[in-house]
Amino acid sequence: MTTASSVPDPSGLHCLRCGLEVRGFAGCPRCAADGIGANAMPPLADLDGLELAGYPGGPWGWPETLPVSGSPVTLGEGGTPNIRLRTDPAALGDGRAPECGSELWVKYEGGNPTGSHKDRAMAVGVAAAVETGADTVCAASSGNAGAAAAAYAGRAGLRCVVFTTESVPSALAAQIDLLGAEQVRCAGGFPERNAAMAQAVAEHGWYPLTSYSSPSPGGNPYANEGYKSVAYELARDFAGRRIGAVVVPTSRADLLAGIERGFRELAAAGLVSAAPRMIAAEPAGAAPFTAALRHADRAAQERTRVESHPTAAFSLGENSPCWQGLDALWRSGGTAVAVAEKEFLAEQHRLAQQGLLLEASSAVAVSVARRMLRERPEPVVAIGTATGMKGLGPAE
Amino acid sequence: MTTASSVPDPSGLHCLRCGLEVRGFAGCPRCAADGIGANAMPPLADLDGLELAGYPGGPWGWPETLPVSGSPVTLGEGGTPNIRLRTDPAALGDGRAPECGSELWVKYEGGNPTGSHKDRAMAVGVAAAVETGADTVCAASSGNAGAAAAAYAGRAGLRCVVFTTESVPSALAAQIDLLGAEQVRCAGGFPERNAAMAQAVAEHGWYPLTSYSSPSPGGNPYANEGYKSVAYELARDFAGRRIGAVVVPTSRADLLAGIERGFRELAAAGLVSAAPRMIAAEPAGAAPFTAALRHADRAAQERTRVESHPTAAFSLGENSPCWQGLDALWRSGGTAVAVAEKEFLAEQHRLAQQGLLLEASSAVAVSVARRMLRERPEPVVAIGTATGMKGLGPAE
Repeated sequence: MTTASSVPDPSGLHCLRCGLEVRGFAGCPRCAADGIGANAMPPLADLDGLELAGYPGGPWGWPETLPVSGSPVTLGEGGTPNIRLRTDPAALGDGRAPECGSELWVKYEGGNPTGSHKDRAMAVGVAAAVETGADTVCAASSGNAGAAAAAYAGRAGLRCVVFTTESVPSALAAQIDLLGAEQVRCAGGFPERNAAMAQAVAEHGWYPLTSYSSPSPGGNPYANEGYKSVAYELARDFAGRRIGAVVVPTSRADLLAGIERGFRELAAAGLVSAAPRMIAAEPAGAAPFTAALRHADRAAQERTRVESHPTAAFSLGENSPCWQGLDALWRSGGTAVAVAEKEFLAEQHRLAQQGLLLEASSAVAVSVARRMLRERPEPVVAIGTATGMKGLGPAE
Repeated sequence: MTTASSVPDPSGLHCLRCGLEVRGFAGCPRCAADGIGANAMPPLADLDGLELAGYPGGPWGWPETLPVSGSPVTLGEGGTPNIRLRTDPAALGDGRAPECGSELWVKYEGGNPTGSHKDRAMAVGVAAAVETGADTVCAASSGNAGAAAAAYAGRAGLRCVVFTTESVPSALAAQIDLLGAEQVRCAGGFPERNAAMAQAVAEHGWYPLTSYSSPSPGGNPYANEGYKSVAYELARDFAGRRIGAVVVPTSRADLLAGIERGFRELAAAGLVSAAPRMIAAEPAGAAPFTAALRHADRAAQERTRVESHPTAAFSLGENSPCWQGLDALWRSGGTAVAVAEKEFLAEQHRLAQQGLLLEASSAVAVSVARRMLRERPEPVVAIGTATGMKGLGPAE
């Protein structure tokens, strides 16, 4: 008997695509056999009776919306600010005409405890792990998710093992180390890293906080529910004003899908009049959603494969569109936009000169949001997923 | 005629110690002639009619409490979380008995836009600069203040010059650069750096966002008013529960004095029943307040001089106690505590293992707060002034 048996399989999860009840954290096996990475999620929460004005923010602000019943694990995540960017030609510095009258906002997730939106997910994921009786959690990560997993595991007193590749930025590796997690650096790329984690989950029964199967269905469904709080906060902060679009840096679309679920819950309860369009922002070198949406029919979209190239937006990069992301784009009438390396690096620089130091992948979203301004009169919100403060220079 | 004449002197500032009306930003000249660095501040704000439950957080949450009337300059600063630390022996990892039943909290200021509490000050200081018509702001800084000055100047479209020494950590220098400020690295130490800034203020009329005179009176009085928001947030979040002590990493005591002023305003308006004791936490190698309070009479305390040694808590270090800090300690019945390098570095490590990556100077405050638990039954709050994410490793 291995320790694997000590962690019970999750229950109440159904494939988003085919409805199959799913055990385990590797997504839907039936859809995977069909070549499609589809996540299995709990039912949407019922927000009837909740009032946005009293929502305190963060995933634990409305614990009844989460599929865990144990004690919250928290480091004060969420409650991040919305910052309106200047869109006048002087701010753009290039003499272009004003983009239009609509507003460009960044929701700055870099203010979370470990510097990224991943904290919202890991707070809930680690609480779910505690609830199952796990003593060890694990994550496959290019950095931010690993740091968040390490922090929340430390907070809860669990052991944490993070599987990375040799290309993990050294600042992120250092952060994971300092936060007390063990790190397994896998030779090769994402497939080898994920295989190592899959083996650990199977052999040791470690609780998986991230995706590790192929084609990836997206992350741990309990963790992902933490992202709904981004939608709740936006709806509260925009207080009845309709948001035209929410632009999300997208890799496996955990955040994109979580925000869309949050808005869907809000709309169902009548707490927002209309959900915003969800927009997947991708670096041109790794843009499966953009490629998928070039196909006319959904069957072809689901089966899209692209080559993924290295990008400065190192936390992004998949070669197939996770189905949960396509579903969010379809449901919200959204789209996907790819941005050239040069364009989002220039955006990253411009944002910094205006006081906002963001990770390159966040600048991908701002670049896309800037384009959306021309199309719609409502405010556009880009999710600034992570701070640019990691990796500033050598440790002292 | 130099450009100096274009920036009007501040008005309505009076020396905290002797009451003299003071022009300029170098503190009280009469007290300086007496060898004492005393800041000149605007009158306390009247909070009558305000309700804590409706306070949205941050310095601009209650703009009427600030001595500036122009548009807010903001990057979403403030509204930082309070995180309760474990104080059981298992969490301490050393088998010591529980410290007692009282609660140990960290208010995590690392979630601010540039990663430190300085954002609260620079938001207000830059707004004050804009109001005077300044086109260039400047700061003398070992890092965090310079980064915050750079960010808020960038946000407001002002030029920013940061005076540093050669010992500025390279990650912080990189952050200041990325945020678009010019950096002047001064050979020598703090005196040479401050002299260079004083000359720039006098010759060019640049607006000074930090202290630059000797003995230091503490920072720009308008900027410092931004720190009152820490007290407002704590009072709101503890919602009527009495806080026993607030422990603040202290160098020139800008933050300590600002928090005390905020609590004094709250108490005057009946919004808190009692203000907490303010505690100055210092690294043993640079502990002027701890040394000062060893003297029995205040006249001797004011004139204390110590040798300041290099410390891992690099953002701390003065050789005389700024009078504003002594005043805050006296008024609140507080004290100052020095912590050995080894103790606060161990605390920093312990905090990280529990999920909180803080700058070393923040760990100084947590070390002191841990000791206070033994003395008082009420909750103790340590201010976690800055994130430990800067300087994690080389940039990619």
